[in-house]
Amino acid sequence: ERDKYENNDVAGVVTGLAWTSVGGDILFIESILSKGKGMLNITGNLGKVMKESATIAMEYIKSNAESFGIDPSVFAKYNVHIHVPEGATPKDGPSAGVTMLTSLVSLFTQKKVKKSLAMTGEITLRGKVLPVGGIKEKILAAKRARIKEIILCEDNRKDIMEIKEEYLKGLTFHYVTDMSEVIDLAITNQKVKNAKKL
Amino acid sequence: ERDKYENNDVAGVVTGLAWTSVGGDILFIESILSKGKGMLNITGNLGKVMKESATIAMEYIKSNAESFGIDPSVFAKYNVHIHVPEGATPKDGPSAGVTMLTSLVSLFTQKKVKKSLAMTGEITLRGKVLPVGGIKEKILAAKRARIKEIILCEDNRKDIMEIKEEYLKGLTFHYVTDMSEVIDLAITNQKVKNAKKL
Amino acid sequence: ERDKYENNDVAGVVTGLAWTSVGGDILFIESILSKGKGMLNITGNLGKVMKESATIAMEYIKSNAESFGIDPSVFAKYNVHIHVPEGATPKDGPSAGVTMLTSLVSLFTQKKVKKSLAMTGEITLRGKVLPVGGIKEKILAAKRARIKEIILCEDNRKDIMEIKEEYLKGLTFHYVTDMSEVIDLAITNQKVKNAKKL
Amino acid sequence: ERDKYENNDVAGVVTGLAWTSVGGDILFIESILSKGKGMLNITGNLGKVMKESATIAMEYIKSNAESFGIDPSVFAKYNVHIHVPEGATPKDGPSAGVTMLTSLVSLFTQKKVKKSLAMTGEITLRGKVLPVGGIKEKILAAKRARIKEIILCEDNRKDIMEIKEEYLKGLTFHYVTDMSEVIDLAITNQKVKNAKKL
Amino acid sequence: ERDKYENNDVAGVVTGLAWTSVGGDILFIESILSKGKGMLNITGNLGKVMKESATIAMEYIKSNAESFGIDPSVFAKYNVHIHVPEGATPKDGPSAGVTMLTSLVSLFTQKKVKKSLAMTGEITLRGKVLPVGGIKEKILAAKRARIKEIILCEDNRKDIMEIKEEYLKGLTFHYVTDMSEVIDLAITNQKVKNAKKL
Amino acid sequence: ERDKYENNDVAGVVTGLAWTSVGGDILFIESILSKGKGMLNITGNLGKVMKESATIAMEYIKSNAESFGIDPSVFAKYNVHIHVPEGATPKDGPSAGVTMLTSLVSLFTQKKVKKSLAMTGEITLRGKVLPVGGIKEKILAAKRARIKEIILCEDNRKDIMEIKEEYLKGLTFHYVTDMSEVIDLAITNQKVKNAKKL
Ligand SMILES: [Ca+2]
Ligand SMILES: [Ca+2]
Ligand SMILES: [Ca+2]
Ligand SMILES: [Ca+2]
Ligand SMILES: [Ca+2]
Ligand SMILES: [Ca+2]
Ligand SMILES: [Ca+2]
Ligand SMILES: [Ca+2]
Ligand SMILES: [Ca+2]
Ligand SMILES: [Ca+2]
Ligand SMILES: [Ca+2]
Ligand SMILES: [Ca+2]
Repeated sequence: ERDKYENNDVAGVVTGLAWTSVGGDILFIESILSKGKGMLNITGNLGKVMKESATIAMEYIKSNAESFGIDPSVFAKYNVHIHVPEGATPKDGPSAGVTMLTSLVSLFTQKKVKKSLAMTGEITLRGKVLPVGGIKEKILAAKRARIKEIILCEDNRKDIMEIKEEYLKGLTFHYVTDMSEVIDLAITNQKVKNAKKL
Repeated sequence: ERDKYENNDVAGVVTGLAWTSVGGDILFIESILSKGKGMLNITGNLGKVMKESATIAMEYIKSNAESFGIDPSVFAKYNVHIHVPEGATPKDGPSAGVTMLTSLVSLFTQKKVKKSLAMTGEITLRGKVLPVGGIKEKILAAKRARIKEIILCEDNRKDIMEIKEEYLKGLTFHYVTDMSEVIDLAITNQKVKNAKKL
Repeated sequence: ERDKYENNDVAGVVTGLAWTSVGGDILFIESILSKGKGMLNITGNLGKVMKESATIAMEYIKSNAESFGIDPSVFAKYNVHIHVPEGATPKDGPSAGVTMLTSLVSLFTQKKVKKSLAMTGEITLRGKVLPVGGIKEKILAAKRARIKEIILCEDNRKDIMEIKEEYLKGLTFHYVTDMSEVIDLAITNQKVKNAKKL
Repeated sequence: ERDKYENNDVAGVVTGLAWTSVGGDILFIESILSKGKGMLNITGNLGKVMKESATIAMEYIKSNAESFGIDPSVFAKYNVHIHVPEGATPKDGPSAGVTMLTSLVSLFTQKKVKKSLAMTGEITLRGKVLPVGGIKEKILAAKRARIKEIILCEDNRKDIMEIKEEYLKGLTFHYVTDMSEVIDLAITNQKVKNAKKL
Repeated sequence: ERDKYENNDVAGVVTGLAWTSVGGDILFIESILSKGKGMLNITGNLGKVMKESATIAMEYIKSNAESFGIDPSVFAKYNVHIHVPEGATPKDGPSAGVTMLTSLVSLFTQKKVKKSLAMTGEITLRGKVLPVGGIKEKILAAKRARIKEIILCEDNRKDIMEIKEEYLKGLTFHYVTDMSEVIDLAITNQKVKNAKKL
Repeated sequence: ERDKYENNDVAGVVTGLAWTSVGGDILFIESILSKGKGMLNITGNLGKVMKESATIAMEYIKSNAESFGIDPSVFAKYNVHIHVPEGATPKDGPSAGVTMLTSLVSLFTQKKVKKSLAMTGEITLRGKVLPVGGIKEKILAAKRARIKEIILCEDNRKDIMEIKEEYLKGLTFHYVTDMSEVIDLAITNQKVKNAKKL
């Protein structure tokens, strides 16, 4: 699945980490813009909590646009669509929150997301990052997918401490408490190829 | 969890007290504004009654804007989003009403909420504060979280009287009957850092 | 619970009588106005039939505005919120109809509701008052709450006749067939304190 | 219940006949107008089919306004509310169709409905009247309520033929196939008291 | 039931064939226009698939208006209501598609539908007619109702071949593959009585 | 069923491959335009995931209009209806994604789809094509329907490798990873007969 995540040519694509009863997995958050009136479409067979994460991410970026260098007047001119492949798999839970917000920041700034990076964490409306479950399984999945860096909530540091060192080899961890740190780590200064002018 | 509640730099963040089958807990109400047309978003895996509390708080502040020093024309220019972390936990009941209204007053005045303060109580449309359940468990949770002051309904005074004194040490209780008292106690005169001009 | 109902300083607060499997109780109907476009919000953990009562009351007052001395153009300029505390208790049935309509008349005229008065009865779109159940339990609850006057449907007179006289001591009953009688009995000529100019 | 139906001073009140597992009954269809934008409110604890009857009646009168002497531009200026007391009783089925349409014709013409008249029958979009069930029970209920004239579908004539003559004494039956006949029979040429100018 | 279907004085009334567990039956599709903004009302106790047929018919006629001689600007000026009596009977399935589209073509051209004609068949968005089930039962019901001509999908020809010749006596069958053939067969060149000018 | 898919005279009709518990089948995606305001209608008895595929396809084409040679201003002037016959069969799953997007590209460019071609694959918002299940059954169904070329996800190549060669005779396979390849393969340069001018 290597080239799937290594390609960061498209704005709005960010790698997250998921955890289900059958183990950990990587997942992608994709978001796109189309001319519109500020509607938010959410797809990917998502449950109520995961849809709420998308709403929180969208409202957070709208409320804090200037801090991300985004002109707030842009939100009323476009519709946003957030999708989480693969459609056949039901998904739920708050842990894709940081991934969704990172996707939207990339989308509205048209800037590249850092390569070989994955993340997992709940977000709150004031930009806090909260810890999530299934860390061990998520880390193993990230390694299988050749992820190099992982962003986690500071409160998940203890979960990493409990994992055997050999499983962590080759992985760099970033522990954060605020969304601003996630964006600093994940969003590059390079515009994507064929960046849209919003 | 200390620094989580001690930080009152952001408008709209207020500490409440919750009670579930597994005991008491503190919870946070967060609210933000984004340019819009007066829509109300509510997230946090909330049940019907708790969503109604948010609606009541919103309509109450709109109906009584002037008494809080808020220009009523502002409501039609912004969308409000009220969120209750953590998304994975289902929540319900009317006891976060005072907390939600306090959050909205802080949000629309951009004033700081008093530090180390928590509250629990149902609100009604005429601004009355009604008693709620689980007081003992909530107090224990507040102490664990190093809360210093607690706002309760006057009718909950009897529940505090039944708690052993040692559990109450270090806690100051404010018994109220009206929302105006809650706002007087909880909202400071200081603007938050980077206060928005509405 | 005395001072709860004795205070009639606020427009739109009216005392009703409810009846559940665990006995009779008093309840309050509260309504408020906020600048808006004629939307109706209904909260209080209400079932379908009780929500319909609120809709009927609202449409009735809009259709008969002039007879209540209300300028009909006002309805499109405000949103109305009707709430029935307490949120944790599910409520249903048509018997709060007269109470809701009285609340709305007080709200839109900004006139005080008579003190120590309670009422129960279904309303219809042509302003008829229909009989309701649980009269004995409701009367006992009204007495406990020190209510002095009660408005009932004429067809409920027979239910009062069956109650032992000692339980009725100190209570005055008004039997009505039309909403106009309820309004004449319940709405005073005094404006509430700080009456809004609509 | 005599005076309930004998009063035809109010536009939009028409007597129908209902049939449930516990026997026949009379019911009232009430409708009112309020300034608005052509919305249709339907209340009375109605099931899906009975709500559809209200929609059919409303669309039928809009499509055939001129044939009833109604200015079609009026529909966009008012909201219509159709209610079927009593709210505590769930109701369903298509048999109130003729009653609902008659109510709307009275409402939009502000003309009196004939006294001591009841009706039952399904309507279709092209104005046909279809037969309904429970005729015997409905007739007995009409008699108990001192109804004098009854409008039925022609195809229900055979059901009347099977009822013992003594039960029919004092009742006049009108058998119809089209809504135009119902309106001719039920709507008088007299305006109601205080007729609204639409 | 003869005169019910023989009357083709009203635009938008077309005879279809239905099939339920208790046998075949004829049914009528009725449609009417009222001044509006292009809304589609669908009634008659219909299931999801049958409602979808109505939507398909409506969108098909809008997309192909010119080929039916209909001015496309008319759709935004009227609301359409499609009804399938009788309301007490739940109905579902795609087989009324051709009947619904024929009804709408009659409605928007205000042309008479051919007498003594019935039809059954699913439609698709590109105007194909697809085969349906229950052909034998439907044919018997058509005969009982004195239908003379029947339109079926070409792929249903084999179902007719399996029916005893005596049951088919007096019936003419038209086998089609496209909606254009249905319209050619079913819609006459005569305007209905009192044709509306759209 | 030959001529059903061989006809490519109509824009928006594309052949897909479906797989249910009773085996593989071909299916058609149909889409049409009508004057409107950018609404999307989806019919065909589809489940949640398949409806999401239609939304994804629609938003993808809106976001990438220029790359398909489509004027983006056209989307706000038309309503789109996507239908999947046959209405009686419930359908779900993400595998019709590529087929739906191809249908919409044909619709908005009014260009012919290549004959004797079928496809199956999930799409994502960034235009990736994902593998799907039931490949063997789908291939057998395609052969029965005399399909000549099949578009599949590159990741489904391994599924074809496992099928006996004799079943593949006469079929050409195109393995793709991106929607742009699908469109290059499936959309011809010829306008459809009577192409609409959008
Ligand atoms: Ca995977
Ligand atoms: Ca994640
Ligand atoms: Ca907690
Ligand atoms: Ca609380
Ligand atoms: Ca109580
Ligand atoms: Ca009451
Ligand atoms: Ca009755
Ligand atoms: Ca029949
Ligand atoms: Ca049919
Ligand atoms: Ca098939
Ligand atoms: Ca497919
Ligand atoms: Ca897949």
